[in-house]
Amino acid sequence: MSPIYDRVALIGLGLIASSMFWAIKRAGLAGEVTGYARSEETRETARRIGLCDRVCDTAQEAVEGADLVVLCVPVGAMGSVAKDIASVLKPGATVSDVGSVKRHVIRDVGPHIPEGVHFVPAHPLAGTEHSGPESGFAELFDNRWCLLVPVEGSDPEAIARLRALWEGMGSNVDEMDADHHDLVLAVTSHAPHLIAYTMVGVADDLRRVTDSEVIKYSAAGFRDFTRIAASDPTMWRDVFLTNKDATLEILGRFTEELFALQRAIRTGDGELLFDYFTRTRAIRRGIIDAGQDTDAPDFGRVHGKS
Amino acid sequence: MSPIYDRVALIGLGLIASSMFWAIKRAGLAGEVTGYARSEETRETARRIGLCDRVCDTAQEAVEGADLVVLCVPVGAMGSVAKDIASVLKPGATVSDVGSVKRHVIRDVGPHIPEGVHFVPAHPLAGTEHSGPESGFAELFDNRWCLLVPVEGSDPEAIARLRALWEGMGSNVDEMDADHHDLVLAVTSHAPHLIAYTMVGVADDLRRVTDSEVIKYSAAGFRDFTRIAASDPTMWRDVFLTNKDATLEILGRFTEELFALQRAIRTGDGELLFDYFTRTRAIRRGIIDAGQDTDAPDFGRVHGKS
Repeated sequence: MSPIYDRVALIGLGLIASSMFWAIKRAGLAGEVTGYARSEETRETARRIGLCDRVCDTAQEAVEGADLVVLCVPVGAMGSVAKDIASVLKPGATVSDVGSVKRHVIRDVGPHIPEGVHFVPAHPLAGTEHSGPESGFAELFDNRWCLLVPVEGSDPEAIARLRALWEGMGSNVDEMDADHHDLVLAVTSHAPHLIAYTMVGVADDLRRVTDSEVIKYSAAGFRDFTRIAASDPTMWRDVFLTNKDATLEILGRFTEELFALQRAIRTGDGELLFDYFTRTRAIRRGIIDAGQDTDAPDFGRVHGKS
Repeated sequence: MSPIYDRVALIGLGLIASSMFWAIKRAGLAGEVTGYARSEETRETARRIGLCDRVCDTAQEAVEGADLVVLCVPVGAMGSVAKDIASVLKPGATVSDVGSVKRHVIRDVGPHIPEGVHFVPAHPLAGTEHSGPESGFAELFDNRWCLLVPVEGSDPEAIARLRALWEGMGSNVDEMDADHHDLVLAVTSHAPHLIAYTMVGVADDLRRVTDSEVIKYSAAGFRDFTRIAASDPTMWRDVFLTNKDATLEILGRFTEELFALQRAIRTGDGELLFDYFTRTRAIRRGIIDAGQDTDAPDFGRVHGKS
């Protein structure tokens, strides 16, 4: 594939940025990829493992001359990073991001984008519970969705080019407005993460069930929650604080529904429970048919002596 | 390995029983394994795929002459199956089960066990979201825990023999009393399952987020919940109805905790959220160190074009 951008700058070098670098290299989508991370330790790690063609000591240096700048920092830090780099953005360049919340990012980043620079927010729906510069891999985005959330007046050509980049990295691409994005993600991601964190916290708190029992016997369901609840704390703190309304709305619905099921348990309404559990099975089938998960039992976890 | 039992009877031929059969065969742990399932279709499937050395048309026929009888039916059906087979149990035989709830099973099954027959309840902490006679595989129990829950007066020799069988099938074995078992499982399994069912139900209900969006964008966390919420509806209905007290207690704690986190989101208490999310990460590490899950990102799911 011929390069889509001459120079791409990745600001923040965690799981998503490092996966983007390897995916860009895999398909030859950029002439040069520069990178910057706030922590010196991260920059050193990046240099050691060959993450980015050039690791810079300042965000401004990484951004200079770039055709595409992707902000890959926690949502709460996007605004200050945008402010920091605004003066060195090349005319005609595109600024994008990979944040899990879009209204807040648009509000915080938008005002810093100078005239003549395009702003096309984006969100790849891909990740693992690992974080940091060494956690990335080229296949992370393969067959996963990336949502582009253009703002008013986004240049169609800039959008098309960013779409081509994400498709080149293996993603399927959809466009969506920011309000809808934040609600959909509250359902498919933000509420499930908070619920998983909560359940793991409860288990950790219980004195009658020792940690060691919770850990030994986790295979019965709990360990799936622990994977989600092992995600990056800073990233998730910011997600909940910046997608407050939609997350609280979905959690409200969740609590209502949980109370209805608790009531069915208390009153012994087996029919309600059975019907509910049958209905939820169908969604799983839909996800597998859509190629978004494996049908292999237990996610294809290796069963056997370890 | 030399056989531990001359004849084992499996009553109910779902995921656990079929996995037991293949695990018993793998290690040569029984001379003959007979099987029975209530549904004719299941019996036919079992015969077709070679599940059990002999598939019988009645439970009594399967049980006759067996040294070990394992009840592998939903918890709510254990009592009536025990009643049905009581008269043909061989003196000196052991009756066990694989139910996810132990107090209820002991209460329902215990009274039907004749003098001279041993009753050693058990619960293998292993499973997948698949069910039925074709879902079993020999490796299901490898490195997983099986909890033996002996009742008052359980014969030590009968317990030791059942332990040897489970170890032969690949399990680690612990003993525990029924009350504690039901509480531990409420934490590690029953509450997480109800929570996952609830979250998937909420997503299914939301009209503004279409099914197709929930499915397409599920990789962001939600799809882990859908795996759990795809488990067998009959089995889980019975679990909640028969481990009512412990499940409701844990769900009460969960709701309390969820409200505290919701409040932190509402008031913008980022420090509380960050500390909470950091603490839950440690449990995940414990589970991986204990060999109860893989450290591979995303459970080792295959990332790539599918």
